[in-house]
Amino acid sequence: MTLALVNETIKKELAAVEQLFTDELGSDLGCVNNLVKHVSRFRGKMLRPTLVLLAGKSCGELTDAHAVLATVVEMVHMATLVHDDVLDEAELRRKGATINHLRGNEAAVLLGDYLISHSFHLCSSLDSQFASRIIGRTTNQVCEGELLQIHHRNNLDLDEETYFQIIRRKTASLCATCCLLGAKYAGASEVRMSQLELFGLSLGTAFQIQDDILDIVGDANTVGKTLGLDLEKGKLTLPIIHYLRTASPQKREWMRSIVENQSPDRIDAVRKLLLASDSINYARHCAGDHVSRARAALADLPDTKSKRLLDAMAEFVADRAV
Amino acid sequence: MTLALVNETIKKELAAVEQLFTDELGSDLGCVNNLVKHVSRFRGKMLRPTLVLLAGKSCGELTDAHAVLATVVEMVHMATLVHDDVLDEAELRRKGATINHLRGNEAAVLLGDYLISHSFHLCSSLDSQFASRIIGRTTNQVCEGELLQIHHRNNLDLDEETYFQIIRRKTASLCATCCLLGAKYAGASEVRMSQLELFGLSLGTAFQIQDDILDIVGDANTVGKTLGLDLEKGKLTLPIIHYLRTASPQKREWMRSIVENQSPDRIDAVRKLLLASDSINYARHCAGDHVSRARAALADLPDTKSKRLLDAMAEFVADRAV
Repeated sequence: MTLALVNETIKKELAAVEQLFTDELGSDLGCVNNLVKHVSRFRGKMLRPTLVLLAGKSCGELTDAHAVLATVVEMVHMATLVHDDVLDEAELRRKGATINHLRGNEAAVLLGDYLISHSFHLCSSLDSQFASRIIGRTTNQVCEGELLQIHHRNNLDLDEETYFQIIRRKTASLCATCCLLGAKYAGASEVRMSQLELFGLSLGTAFQIQDDILDIVGDANTVGKTLGLDLEKGKLTLPIIHYLRTASPQKREWMRSIVENQSPDRIDAVRKLLLASDSINYARHCAGDHVSRARAALADLPDTKSKRLLDAMAEFVADRAV
Repeated sequence: MTLALVNETIKKELAAVEQLFTDELGSDLGCVNNLVKHVSRFRGKMLRPTLVLLAGKSCGELTDAHAVLATVVEMVHMATLVHDDVLDEAELRRKGATINHLRGNEAAVLLGDYLISHSFHLCSSLDSQFASRIIGRTTNQVCEGELLQIHHRNNLDLDEETYFQIIRRKTASLCATCCLLGAKYAGASEVRMSQLELFGLSLGTAFQIQDDILDIVGDANTVGKTLGLDLEKGKLTLPIIHYLRTASPQKREWMRSIVENQSPDRIDAVRKLLLASDSINYARHCAGDHVSRARAALADLPDTKSKRLLDAMAEFVADRAV
């Protein structure tokens, strides 16, 4: 099962999300519309809208609010991508040139702001403040995760606990919110909402661990973005954290010197050391552990097609090569 | 009358806003709190909270919602300042080092995001979606204004109409929203809300024209930020637009060559040409015109102390040296 197959089952709903996305971002200014066009070219997996929609379907009937919410979370996600590209000085994302590379850092900052602003604007079209409050809380957490990450840049002593704090806030919190809101707007009970939220949190954690693994050992052509960027920007991720904790003193010093060294081929050197160790497997095991937690969180749900698709998604995120 | 004197009359309310500002931005992460500390050092005129509070008082009684709204608009404003500093590469703002200069562009982008996120989060604590929707619409416009501005960077043929479109969206729209929301949450009628909105729009326009004038002919020590930045970043403002339209062909070519030229003393050269012309006066006259419109928008309001203070503010914004 791949995400593309899952998405196929909610094709119509996702098309509505794409339409709403385009409609909401339209401006009376040509220059704004031209810039926004770049974003749609970078549209990716639609993981977050899919979570909103399937969480909703697994708890009851989808409503118009689900299309709105699915669009809102995708906009939040796109905003973080656009601003991440400023942060990361990445020149390649989704096999297309990044906004900042094409149009300069200023346009990238403003386009990210435009996306955040429209996500809140769209969200506030719903009947109650419930979703706005949750989305606001979540974007607060996403910012905190990113800030914690740059605070620990080049910190070779970063521990696993802090790594998990970072990815929980910057990635998993939004996935949790997708599932929580999907459930809430389908009329789910408080208990069911919590189950779905935990599902999203665990799935999001597994997803980010896998992202970090792919950044080291992925295939650039398949993944479609510049690899080795985490290292480039001084971000330590799980495989390296594990390596530095478990390798022999000699190997550890060797790894530290490579990571600190600014040579252009250090990503290859790091990859070699990691592949000869157990650290990539360890990270994969951790991701698998979070997948199990995600699936366990669904145990109590009635057996529907949507539940089975969510279950399949949890497995997919830690298994993907893209 | 200065803004400081106006603020003195609502000292208690503004203190509550400062407290709410600090409370809302607090995090369980020390690194986030350390970064946020920088922002409060840059706290400035409190123009926007003052507009919310006085607009409210001029239409009825202040409520708890006014403190929330006043904090929300100040956060939006601070976010734009922090991101503007990234855009502008300004090294000095409010007589303190800018965030990006102190902590790097990445921290500045994220801190701006953190402020935007918290402004929406705080706004969504209110009872209804009304304010969230208006704030979202306004931040959309602010982004559009900024995007239109960078679209016309280095465009020596920028016309006045486009200049006014830019400043209406990037500055005046938020001032208009401050007054509209202040009135709304004091129970004002639709007509009264429109009057206050127009007041804010006109005041904000006058404020920005004066800001642009000060960037050229202000005294850096008084204004407390790097001057000449508009020119530095290729932003044409009203005095130069007027000069290029009205000067003799010879002088116009001279001005164009100075503006296009990257020499470090070009701000002085531009200042000299403008001061010897009528263009600074023209811009001052335009600002005065918007002040008159602002004051006229208040004509129908009952004669209260708050109305008189708003009236005084309109005059102040176009007259200030800071």
